Amino acid sequence: MAASSSVTAAQALVGRAISGHSSPSPSHPDRLAFGISSIAGNALKSPAAPRLQNRRPQAASRPRRYAVTRAAAVETLEEKPATEALVEKSINTIRFLAIDAVEKANSGHPGLPMGCAPMGHILYDEVMRYNPKNPFWFNRDRFVLSAGHGCMLQYALLHLAGYDSVKMEDLKAFRQWGSKTPGHPENFETLGIEVTTGPLGQGVGNAVGLALAEKHLAARFNKPDMEIVDHYTYCILGDGCQMEGISNEVCSLAGHWGLGKLIAFYDDNHISIDGDTEIAFTEDVNARFEALGWHTIWVKNGNTGYDEIRAAIKEAKAVKDKPTLIKVTTTIGYGSPNKASTYSVHGSALGAKEVEATRQNLGWPYEPFFVPEDVKSHWSRHVLEGPALEAEWNAKFAQYEKKYKEDAAELKQIITGELPAGWEKALPTYTPESPADATRNLSQQCLNALAKVLPGFLGGSADLASSNMTLLKMFGDFQKDTPEERNVRFGVREHGMGAISNGIALHSPGLIPYCATFFVFTDYMRAAIRISALSEAGVIYVMTHDSIGLGEDGPTHQPIEHLISFRAMPNILMLRPADGNETAGAYKVAILNSKRPSILALSRQKLPQLAGTSAEGVAKGGYIISDNSSGNKPDLIIMSTGSELEIAAKAADELRKEGKAVRVVSLVSWELFDEQSDEYKESILPASVTARISIEAGATLGWEKFVGPYGRSIGIDRFGASAPGGRIYKEFGITAEKVIEAAKSL
Amino acid sequence: MAASSSVTAAQALVGRAISGHSSPSPSHPDRLAFGISSIAGNALKSPAAPRLQNRRPQAASRPRRYAVTRAAAVETLEEKPATEALVEKSINTIRFLAIDAVEKANSGHPGLPMGCAPMGHILYDEVMRYNPKNPFWFNRDRFVLSAGHGCMLQYALLHLAGYDSVKMEDLKAFRQWGSKTPGHPENFETLGIEVTTGPLGQGVGNAVGLALAEKHLAARFNKPDMEIVDHYTYCILGDGCQMEGISNEVCSLAGHWGLGKLIAFYDDNHISIDGDTEIAFTEDVNARFEALGWHTIWVKNGNTGYDEIRAAIKEAKAVKDKPTLIKVTTTIGYGSPNKASTYSVHGSALGAKEVEATRQNLGWPYEPFFVPEDVKSHWSRHVLEGPALEAEWNAKFAQYEKKYKEDAAELKQIITGELPAGWEKALPTYTPESPADATRNLSQQCLNALAKVLPGFLGGSADLASSNMTLLKMFGDFQKDTPEERNVRFGVREHGMGAISNGIALHSPGLIPYCATFFVFTDYMRAAIRISALSEAGVIYVMTHDSIGLGEDGPTHQPIEHLISFRAMPNILMLRPADGNETAGAYKVAILNSKRPSILALSRQKLPQLAGTSAEGVAKGGYIISDNSSGNKPDLIIMSTGSELEIAAKAADELRKEGKAVRVVSLVSWELFDEQSDEYKESILPASVTARISIEAGATLGWEKFVGPYGRSIGIDRFGASAPGGRIYKEFGITAEKVIEAAKSL
Repeated sequence: MAASSSVTAAQALVGRAISGHSSPSPSHPDRLAFGISSIAGNALKSPAAPRLQNRRPQAASRPRRYAVTRAAAVETLEEKPATEALVEKSINTIRFLAIDAVEKANSGHPGLPMGCAPMGHILYDEVMRYNPKNPFWFNRDRFVLSAGHGCMLQYALLHLAGYDSVKMEDLKAFRQWGSKTPGHPENFETLGIEVTTGPLGQGVGNAVGLALAEKHLAARFNKPDMEIVDHYTYCILGDGCQMEGISNEVCSLAGHWGLGKLIAFYDDNHISIDGDTEIAFTEDVNARFEALGWHTIWVKNGNTGYDEIRAAIKEAKAVKDKPTLIKVTTTIGYGSPNKASTYSVHGSALGAKEVEATRQNLGWPYEPFFVPEDVKSHWSRHVLEGPALEAEWNAKFAQYEKKYKEDAAELKQIITGELPAGWEKALPTYTPESPADATRNLSQQCLNALAKVLPGFLGGSADLASSNMTLLKMFGDFQKDTPEERNVRFGVREHGMGAISNGIALHSPGLIPYCATFFVFTDYMRAAIRISALSEAGVIYVMTHDSIGLGEDGPTHQPIEHLISFRAMPNILMLRPADGNETAGAYKVAILNSKRPSILALSRQKLPQLAGTSAEGVAKGGYIISDNSSGNKPDLIIMSTGSELEIAAKAADELRKEGKAVRVVSLVSWELFDEQSDEYKESILPASVTARISIEAGATLGWEKFVGPYGRSIGIDRFGASAPGGRIYKEFGITAEKVIEAAKSL
Repeated sequence: MAASSSVTAAQALVGRAISGHSSPSPSHPDRLAFGISSIAGNALKSPAAPRLQNRRPQAASRPRRYAVTRAAAVETLEEKPATEALVEKSINTIRFLAIDAVEKANSGHPGLPMGCAPMGHILYDEVMRYNPKNPFWFNRDRFVLSAGHGCMLQYALLHLAGYDSVKMEDLKAFRQWGSKTPGHPENFETLGIEVTTGPLGQGVGNAVGLALAEKHLAARFNKPDMEIVDHYTYCILGDGCQMEGISNEVCSLAGHWGLGKLIAFYDDNHISIDGDTEIAFTEDVNARFEALGWHTIWVKNGNTGYDEIRAAIKEAKAVKDKPTLIKVTTTIGYGSPNKASTYSVHGSALGAKEVEATRQNLGWPYEPFFVPEDVKSHWSRHVLEGPALEAEWNAKFAQYEKKYKEDAAELKQIITGELPAGWEKALPTYTPESPADATRNLSQQCLNALAKVLPGFLGGSADLASSNMTLLKMFGDFQKDTPEERNVRFGVREHGMGAISNGIALHSPGLIPYCATFFVFTDYMRAAIRISALSEAGVIYVMTHDSIGLGEDGPTHQPIEHLISFRAMPNILMLRPADGNETAGAYKVAILNSKRPSILALSRQKLPQLAGTSAEGVAKGGYIISDNSSGNKPDLIIMSTGSELEIAAKAADELRKEGKAVRVVSLVSWELFDEQSDEYKESILPASVTARISIEAGATLGWEKFVGPYGRSIGIDRFGASAPGGRIYKEFGITAEKVIEAAKSL
C-alpha cells in the first residue's frame, strides 16, 4: 500500500484487511467507501487551534447557544445546556425510540435505555467528541455499552447524532434479518459501535483495552507542544457486568495502571433478570472499586438529576491518575407506571397498553418512532461539528508530521494498519541443522522480531511471561508511570486479558495485541476469544504448553479437547506449528489476518527443526513435508500437527526403509487448508488414497474428516496424567511405533 | 441397594457409582474396599457425648498433653500446644518433605509449602477435625488448597496425619507416573484430597460450594438438641487465585450468603510467576473482601507468628454470620537463604546447593525425606483420634435416627448417594399427542419431579432462572436466612456457579447440584466444567437457548461450536434431547452418572413430541426413531439431535412418500453411543449404508465420524444472526427442504 502525506479516514480503514468473517447482512457497510465519501463530502477544513480553547468553528446552521454549551461541556462542563426542557425532551425521545423499536420487534430490552437515557444524552450530546460522518476518526472518544442488551439506547443515540449507519428505517428494523440494528451491539454490523458486547463484562474489559491503547499511544506520540492522542473512553455497565468475574479482573488492572481517562458509569438499577439484585448481589460496589484503586462517585438521582451526572463527569475528568466509577442509581424502565423497577421491563416489550400508559406518564403525545423537530434540530449540529473536530485534528496532525516526521510515520501506521514494506523479512528462518528448540522459544524469537518492525505490536502474558516466553526484550513494562512500554503484565487474569486485548485491537487497525497463557487455560478466556472471532479483532493468542508434553503439572494443565474446540469456532485460525519455520509461518499468517484472530498452540518441550517444513506451507494450512511416492499415489499418508509431526516423520522414515511409499502431511491449520482449492487439496490428500493415519496429542474427534472411514487416528481421548512428558507419550501410545503398527494394520 | 440401620463409611462410598473416568494410576485406590476396612479395623466404638464438651475419648497410646491441647484448640483455641519447639520442628518437617520431594522429582513448587507450613501445621494438627482412617467421614472439616500447585504442603500434611493414601513412598514418587502424589491435588487419585485444584481460583469456588452444602444440610437436619451437621471449610488461596475473576464471583456470593463457617487463608507472599505482585496486583485485597461482606483479619507474621495464626482462627470462628478472610503475610520459600521471596522458588526445585543452604539456615540436620521421631509421635494420635471422632458422630447419628427417623433416612441418602427405590418413576412421560413445548420447559418438569424424590437435589441459574426454567416450585430460595431452601440464586456468575456446584457435588455423594445458563455462556464457565469432568463431580448443566433457534439475541448468544467442543471433552456427557421423552431420558442418564457430569442442551423454542423417541433410546446415545426399511438396509439414514430431529423426521416423511426407505436416527449423546457394542452400533448405522445425512444447528465438524465420506452434513459453520429464529433457520438452510435436496444429490 502506498504511503500518503496525511492521515485520512480512508487510511484508517485499509490495511490489515483480510476478512474471513462473512456477515449475514446484505447491508453490511463498505467501510472504505464510506470513509472516503465522508472525507470528500463533509469534512471541514479548519485551522488548527491550541487545545483547551474553543477551537471548533461555528457552523452556519447551528444555533449559537448550543454550540457554546457543547464546547463548554466538552472542555469544562461548567455551563449547562441552555434549555433543560429540551434536554428532557431529547431524553424522552431516546426512551421512546427504544420503547417503540422493542415494541415493533416484540423482542428486546427497553428497561436499560429508559433508565440510562439521561446518561446517554449527556454523553453523546454534551460530552463526547466524535464525528458521525467518520466513525473511524482516530482521536474520537470511545463509548462502550458493556450492558449490550440495552443496545437500543446506543442505536437511538447514533441515530440522533447523525450516524448514517442508523437511520430511522434501521430503528424500525430492530432485531430483524439483515438489519444494522441487531439484538446486541456489533461493531462489524453498525458503524459507530466500537466493540461487540452482550456477553456481560466483556464490554468493560474492552473499554479498559481502549483506554490502555490511548494511554500507551499518548505516552509514545504526544509532545510537550502537541497532544496528538487525546481521548476519553466511556462505558456503561450494569449489575450483570458487575457480578461477572471478568469485570473485577479488568477493573483491578485499570486501577493498577491508573487509567485516568477511563470513566465508567455503573447503572445501579437494582434489577436483574431474576428480580431484585438483593437476591444475589449485596456487596458494596463502590467500596470494592476503591479497593481496586478507582475514584468513585455516586449519583443518587440518575433519572432526572442531569446536573448531578454532569458534575460527576467533571469530577471524573479532574481525577487524572485513577479511572472513575460513577455509580448512577436509576430506575429500570423509568417512566413506565406499572413496570418500572421490575424485572419484566428488563428484557421484554412493554406491551401496547403499558406503552400507552408510559406515554401518558411522561407526557409524550407523539406517534411511535417520532423525533420532535426541536430535538432533531438540536442534535443536527453534530454532523457539522464532528467533521470540524476531525478536520481540526487533521490539521494538527499535519503540523505534527512536519515537526516529528518519524513519530508521525509510526503513528500513521498504527492509525491505518498499513504494514511496513518488507516487515515479514524480519521473521527468522531455520534449517534442519538449526538447534532443536521448543516452539514457545521459537515463538519468542518471532515476537521479538516482529516488535522491531511493527509499531503497533504489544502484548503480554497472564503471569506466565517466563513460561510462555513472551517478553519483548527491547521494551520495558507498560505500567502506570511507563505507559510507553510494550510488555503488558496482565497478572493471573486470562479472561480479562482477552477482553482487554480485544479493546486494544479494535482501538486502531495498526495495534496488534498478543496475549498468552497455557493452552489449557483458554478455558478461562474462551468467551473473550469468541468475541475476538465474532468482532473481527485480530488478537494473536500465544498458547504454550499445548499437550501432555508439558509433563508433571498433570491433567489440570494438559489440553486434550482444545484444538478441536477452536477448529470448530467460526472466524478464528487455530495454528499448531511443528518447528521454527512453521512458527514463523504461523506468525506471518496471524499478522496478515487482521480481522481474524489466531491461536498458536506451542510446545513446552524441545522439538527438532524438520526437513520440508516452510512458512509457505503454513499459509496453505496443510502441505507435504516429505514423500517418497510418485504420481500422487502414496501407499500411506501420515498426517500430523505440531510436536507430533516429528513422530510422523520418524515413522515414515521407518516405513520407507521397508519399501513403503509414505507421504507426511503437516495439517498445521485446518481452517486454512479448507480454504484451498479442491485441486490443491487433492494434491495433498488424494481421494484414492484411503490408507491414512493421523497422530496428534489431543482428542481424535474431528480427524475423521481427514483420515476417512478406513484410516486410523492416534490421539488422546481421556484426561492426561502427571509424570515426565516423555513417559506420558509412551504410556498413551503417542509414538512412532504406534504409527507403524497402525500402518501395518491398514 | 439395601438400607442399613446406621451410616458407615462404606455407605458413603457406594451408590451413584457409575464411573466413566479411568485413572492412569495402577494404584488408584478402591474406595469401597478402603472404607470398609477402615471401619472394621480402626473405628472406635465410643459413646455419644453432647457437643461443646471434651467428647473425644483418650486413646491409650496418646500423650495426654497433646490430647488436651488439641481438644482445646479444636473447640476454643484457648490453649497452645505444649511445646512450641516441637511445633517448629513439625513445620520444618513439612517444609523439608516438600523441598525433598520437589528436589527428587526435579519438578514442582516448593515456595508455597515452605511459606504456608505454619498455617498447614496449625490447621491439620491443632484445628481440623477429620479421620485419616476414613477420608470420607461425612462430618469432617473440609480443606481446600486453592493454590493447588503447592500440593506438596497437603501431601506432607496427609502423610503426617496418617492417611494411608500418602505413604513415604508416595512422597518419594511425587509427580511420577502412577503415583498418588500428582503435580496438582486430585481428589480422584488421592484420598484425603477433597477437590481437584490447580487451575487458579477454582478451589476457593469449591470451598464456597462445600460451605454452602454444610450450611444447607445443617439448616435442614440439625435439631435444637442435636447438631448432626457441623463442620468448617478451610481454604488456602494465593495471589493467583485472588487475581482470577472467579474468586471475586464466589467470594461475593459467600459474603451474600453469610457462610460463617468458611475460613479462607490468603497466602500473601507478594510473589507470582512473573515476579513481585507489584507489577500487576496492587489492589487492597482485604478492603475488597470487606466490600464483599466478609470479615477480614491480617496476620502480619505468617512465617513464625503461630499464635497470631491461632488467634485469627479463633476470631474467625467467633464471627458466625460472615465468612472470614485471613490475610497471612508469608515469605515464599521461607528458609531458603538465597531464593526466599523470589519467583524462582515458586515453581522450580531449589537445587542441591540451595537445599543444603536451607538445611543450614533452618537448622535441619536430617537426610532427605526424614520425619523426626518426636514429630512422628506427635502426629500419630490422629489415627486414633480421627476414628474416635467418627465413632462419636456415628453414635450421635444413631440417636438422631431413633428420634428423627425420616430426617435421618433423608440425610443418609445424601451421605451415601443411595438413590431412593423407584426414583426414576417420578420422571414424566409423553406421547406424540402431548402438547408441543420447548425442551427448557420440559426440563423444568423433570427438575421439579426429581426434586420431589431426590433429597440432595438442588441448584439454580446464573440470573436466568425464568429463562432457563430452573426454579423448583416447591422450594424457596437458598439465602443467608433461609439456607434450608433449594433454589440457589447465583447471580450473573457462570464461572463461580460451576465451581460452587463442583464443591456441592463433592461434599456428599447424594448431593446432586444442577446449574444453568444459556448454552453459549458455557464459554464463561468452561474451566469449571472441565474440573467437573476431571474430578468426577456429577454436576448437571442445564443449558438452554441451545442454537440459532433463540433468535433475536443474535450471534453473541447463539452457540455454534459448543456441542462439538463438549463432545470432545473427556468424561462428560453432552446430551441434546429432542422432546419430552428424550429430556426425561437425559435426566435419567444424568442422575445415574454420578461421577460424570452431564450437559443438557435445551431449546428456547417449542418442539413437538415426536413418535419413536424414548428414554431407553437416550440411554444408548443413538437409536432409531423411525424407519420404513427392512433388513437393516435403508436407502438413507438421516441423523440428528435436539430441535433438528423434528426436521429430520419431516424430511424422512417426504422422502418416504417418494418411495425411499429412510431411517431417522436420534444421536442424542455421542459419548453414550460410542460406548455401545459394535453389534448395536451396526444395527443403527450399518456400514453398508453410505447414504447418510446429518442435520444439526451447530458446527458440522465432527459429524464426518457418522456421515462418512459419502454423506452430507447440514449445519452452521459461521456465526449466527439477529432475527426471529424461524427466519434464521430458513436463511441458514437448516430445513427439511435442504435435507431432501441433499438426499437427492447423494
